[in-house]
Amino acid sequence: MTYRIAILGASGYTGAELVRLIATHPQMRITALSADRKAGMTMAEVFPFLRHLDLPRLVKIDEIDFSQVDLCFCALPHATTQEVIARLPKDLKIVDLSADFRLRDPAEYEKWYGQPHTAVELQKEAVYGLTEFYRDDIRKGRLIAGTGCNAATGQFALRPLIAAGVIDLDDILIDLKAGVSGAGRSLKENLLHAELSGGTHTYSAGGKHRHLGEFDQEFSKVAGRPVRVQFTPHLLPMNRGILATVYVKGDAKIVHQTLEKAYENEPFLRVLPFGGLPSTRDIAGSNFCHIGVIGDRIAGRAMVVAVLDNLTKGSSGQAIQNANLVLGIEETTGLMLAPMFP
Amino acid sequence: MTYRIAILGASGYTGAELVRLIATHPQMRITALSADRKAGMTMAEVFPFLRHLDLPRLVKIDEIDFSQVDLCFCALPHATTQEVIARLPKDLKIVDLSADFRLRDPAEYEKWYGQPHTAVELQKEAVYGLTEFYRDDIRKGRLIAGTGCNAATGQFALRPLIAAGVIDLDDILIDLKAGVSGAGRSLKENLLHAELSGGTHTYSAGGKHRHLGEFDQEFSKVAGRPVRVQFTPHLLPMNRGILATVYVKGDAKIVHQTLEKAYENEPFLRVLPFGGLPSTRDIAGSNFCHIGVIGDRIAGRAMVVAVLDNLTKGSSGQAIQNANLVLGIEETTGLMLAPMFP
Amino acid sequence: MTYRIAILGASGYTGAELVRLIATHPQMRITALSADRKAGMTMAEVFPFLRHLDLPRLVKIDEIDFSQVDLCFCALPHATTQEVIARLPKDLKIVDLSADFRLRDPAEYEKWYGQPHTAVELQKEAVYGLTEFYRDDIRKGRLIAGTGCNAATGQFALRPLIAAGVIDLDDILIDLKAGVSGAGRSLKENLLHAELSGGTHTYSAGGKHRHLGEFDQEFSKVAGRPVRVQFTPHLLPMNRGILATVYVKGDAKIVHQTLEKAYENEPFLRVLPFGGLPSTRDIAGSNFCHIGVIGDRIAGRAMVVAVLDNLTKGSSGQAIQNANLVLGIEETTGLMLAPMFP
Amino acid sequence: MTYRIAILGASGYTGAELVRLIATHPQMRITALSADRKAGMTMAEVFPFLRHLDLPRLVKIDEIDFSQVDLCFCALPHATTQEVIARLPKDLKIVDLSADFRLRDPAEYEKWYGQPHTAVELQKEAVYGLTEFYRDDIRKGRLIAGTGCNAATGQFALRPLIAAGVIDLDDILIDLKAGVSGAGRSLKENLLHAELSGGTHTYSAGGKHRHLGEFDQEFSKVAGRPVRVQFTPHLLPMNRGILATVYVKGDAKIVHQTLEKAYENEPFLRVLPFGGLPSTRDIAGSNFCHIGVIGDRIAGRAMVVAVLDNLTKGSSGQAIQNANLVLGIEETTGLMLAPMFP
Repeated sequence: MTYRIAILGASGYTGAELVRLIATHPQMRITALSADRKAGMTMAEVFPFLRHLDLPRLVKIDEIDFSQVDLCFCALPHATTQEVIARLPKDLKIVDLSADFRLRDPAEYEKWYGQPHTAVELQKEAVYGLTEFYRDDIRKGRLIAGTGCNAATGQFALRPLIAAGVIDLDDILIDLKAGVSGAGRSLKENLLHAELSGGTHTYSAGGKHRHLGEFDQEFSKVAGRPVRVQFTPHLLPMNRGILATVYVKGDAKIVHQTLEKAYENEPFLRVLPFGGLPSTRDIAGSNFCHIGVIGDRIAGRAMVVAVLDNLTKGSSGQAIQNANLVLGIEETTGLMLAPMFP
Repeated sequence: MTYRIAILGASGYTGAELVRLIATHPQMRITALSADRKAGMTMAEVFPFLRHLDLPRLVKIDEIDFSQVDLCFCALPHATTQEVIARLPKDLKIVDLSADFRLRDPAEYEKWYGQPHTAVELQKEAVYGLTEFYRDDIRKGRLIAGTGCNAATGQFALRPLIAAGVIDLDDILIDLKAGVSGAGRSLKENLLHAELSGGTHTYSAGGKHRHLGEFDQEFSKVAGRPVRVQFTPHLLPMNRGILATVYVKGDAKIVHQTLEKAYENEPFLRVLPFGGLPSTRDIAGSNFCHIGVIGDRIAGRAMVVAVLDNLTKGSSGQAIQNANLVLGIEETTGLMLAPMFP
Repeated sequence: MTYRIAILGASGYTGAELVRLIATHPQMRITALSADRKAGMTMAEVFPFLRHLDLPRLVKIDEIDFSQVDLCFCALPHATTQEVIARLPKDLKIVDLSADFRLRDPAEYEKWYGQPHTAVELQKEAVYGLTEFYRDDIRKGRLIAGTGCNAATGQFALRPLIAAGVIDLDDILIDLKAGVSGAGRSLKENLLHAELSGGTHTYSAGGKHRHLGEFDQEFSKVAGRPVRVQFTPHLLPMNRGILATVYVKGDAKIVHQTLEKAYENEPFLRVLPFGGLPSTRDIAGSNFCHIGVIGDRIAGRAMVVAVLDNLTKGSSGQAIQNANLVLGIEETTGLMLAPMFP
Repeated sequence: MTYRIAILGASGYTGAELVRLIATHPQMRITALSADRKAGMTMAEVFPFLRHLDLPRLVKIDEIDFSQVDLCFCALPHATTQEVIARLPKDLKIVDLSADFRLRDPAEYEKWYGQPHTAVELQKEAVYGLTEFYRDDIRKGRLIAGTGCNAATGQFALRPLIAAGVIDLDDILIDLKAGVSGAGRSLKENLLHAELSGGTHTYSAGGKHRHLGEFDQEFSKVAGRPVRVQFTPHLLPMNRGILATVYVKGDAKIVHQTLEKAYENEPFLRVLPFGGLPSTRDIAGSNFCHIGVIGDRIAGRAMVVAVLDNLTKGSSGQAIQNANLVLGIEETTGLMLAPMFP
């Protein structure tokens, strides 16, 4: 069976990545694409790399007949998202890529996003979309809240360790390196090629990055008590990819075994042999996450390094993985594309 | 039906690209991989981005049982290739990616490659692998000679124009911009990131690039008389992609119509509306070739710009397209992957 | 003696490059910096790479006391420039980096820039700032019009050849590759790192680029009859540098000798031995222009390749070279910085 | 007075960077350049970006008349260096850029570099070349051992904090991001543009990087007791620059004040206002080091971020700074070049 798919917010990078992946998905067909300011344009005009596809023209959201849609991806900015979804049919299956339904506690949402949540009822219904840890809920869910891309990377490195109690919960440090597509198609001076290429800097440092809200919520839930990590993202001169260097206190071998066991049956999470560490180059454009563990020369300290593609496993690939579950399709369908190297 | 595939020379970029594409090809299964110096290693050790695949270990060519192989891709260096292929079973279907069987005239081979051809008999059997123009021969062929990546780009821009007689044959100029993966995994100072990034230079300028041999052969054949083009490649700080800026003397509108008509039914060749010009970013990682035409302010002069991915449409994607034909599979099978952007 | 320098438009790349170069210029001291929207900020806030310098705060132009200024660099957008300069003191020495005073014929200005020139009287006074060819006029000049960066590159390759009559004036083709800083600090999607890196495309193709106005004016003047060249710029994923591949019809050796002789005493123009071709990497950040010549396999055709840094020799370095002349300082003062490699 | 300078190992990146900087140094003149395998070539052949300079031809070390040399920079690989320096005149002033004389304890040298030190007597004479902390010794020294580039970055962030006792000495973590020129002109697959660009990975992780030897030696010396830090370098797709993210336990404001006070009179070290964090883009090509401090949301934790250019302040700029002291020249001479941006 082929499902009819709508994508709201198709003119951004995650929207385009959804189209790229669905282009070869055997059971999804795009029947509606929205883009507010670019309504009326063809997708080929907005993203010429999709020129070969036969796609519907971009429209405004109100022009879409959702009764003809089996599942709707929502790739809109936060805040806008909650307003839009509140107006959509209440039985429409939705996979959201924004931050609006990730935080269960409205107070946390307001704290990290600077404004009150206006769709608190919907929030109660939302399922946190970290597929590997919420599979059953996602299968039964109607509104899936895709995770932050950094939040996903850190959680893949840490959740099994926190759950197993093999690391010190009070001294976890995530030093993260992120490619620029995570910032979206934003017109900012520091995202210009002339200013970004050839250098690096931190951003949202000092415990200010919004994905900390997700870390707090999820790690505390797993641990059964409050967990607060340190988290510093850096912007790198690369388009795709996140590498999270996670410093923990615990036995490196046990850390490795714990991750290996946790992910042994996961199709997209690959734990490297002990001591091997991954590169973002090896997952570009794919839905895979590679994870490595190494010990330090100082006994009792270990490092977990996790890499994934922020646009794929970190957002649009994850979204399709979740949509597959929601639609009852085999989870990996359309997502086994190999990474692109070089 | 699933065909058993061998790849000789799997430790180079075109070999790895073949594996990447076959990974999601529904009718091909890799059963043998060779790499001379890296025999004994796993593909994941040589190319960790292929870590998720279940692949045979790398072996030496002599260890392969070719009776269990339906088709063999040969991604070896030139000169070595002719020796290797001469020793393979005479009925084995082969798609070669090297330069060894592209030039029909052994004297031309010697002129451009600096040594006599040692498998002249095999050369007679070889079919030039520019799929769109040699489809019928390829379907019937046993040994297909993949084209040069630059040679493919220039021919897509020019063949229909030469055939139709709509441009001056004595004043054709191809100024080409190429990404660095075309140089292969060669350890040369000027290919280091520190030396290549952030700048550009010409190479093999002044009529010395070997792909001129292919241009001469093919354009003269199409024209029915000798055609000699000017051709200057430039190396750009990008990994994939070729952009050929082709300057011709002729009517721009007629040039555009001629190309549009020639390629109207081609699945991989896309002619843009008149005046639109393509970008290499829009074909990265895909088997598509985008072509644009514009006129100059000087009457009677036109410019054709063609882009393709040197590793895909320029070599490994083309090779699979040819292999599909040789095996009797639908030509586009496994090749409809969308480009990756950004 | 140390001269007091004002820079109008200091918040753009050419403004910043002026500051970078003047930082180690022994006879210039910056006493005023303007930036309209960023007035009130420090230069370190706008350009942290200049943090170590003791610079005046950014102000609006009207706040500058020009009686205390010996020379004013004007790095403002075109159109704005002519209005601003018209209001400046009539005896103030000005080196302009915009396009406003490059074209002597107001009709040509209107044709290429889409609006009538509003300071035609000033235009009469302006000296075209291609230093090597207008030295005497510049020394005596008050208002110097810096050239376009592409226009400079093409002229260095061609002026001596046109003057000497050694090439066919009706068949000159400039295929130019430009780094992105030439587009300025403009917030455009296609200048974002995510969209520009890793690929290339043409822009202003088909005889539409504004620097053609300069080529037409200067080449026709040198030739004593109308000369119209073909000119196609390409945007490359690099920050600095222009490489112009210039195709001419003429004897390659004579072309080389003509350039070698023309530039034998030039401090910044370096002609390579015959057959050697330059790289943009070798002039980055410097005021040098490297030029190479090679013949084609087709007799009577030659290629001249010229490289320079668009921000230095192509604009701000050229501007300082001109300012040195205007102020009576030795021409190379402050400009002998070696390129930066890698 | 102008000093006669020899550079041994002029064909590598640090050798070339020495030449670049000395090109505009008013009191140094290069009179000898060595390069073993490239002896006989001109510097312009090896590094065309130095084409405009009038430099001596490359020779073998034995061909240099050291009686005509006032100071010798040694930019050779480790191990080779100790052999070469042992054979040089015993009164020759030497600034070494290798690792051979950095570690005072020969056992430590053997531990980190895998072989016994063969010039132990010379080691006793060597002065550790971190200029800002060894100024007086360097002024009186004959053989100065330049620091590792990563080691310099970490020390600039940490030495004053360790000396002042304002941070926990048992929980210091340096997550470092390095550009590729630090790896030298080595022909390795992972340094190719095709493999390095667009991604990142760790290297020498887990307490294996050799610069830990310097950290151990220096931090323990400053603290008066053993100090062992965690240190993980990452390779980034950029040519120049190091960013060290240093995680410490201590009061952020006191950390900031300590650094600000320590460096208030330093010409090259710039501490940003509290909460401001630096970018590698702002020091490229210069001898400056920018340092920022921020607190974490978790009380009692702070982050120090230091950036410098590995080829300049991290090696060749530092070397010239040291040479200035050795020669009795003003310390900043020739080193005030502004960074290059973009």
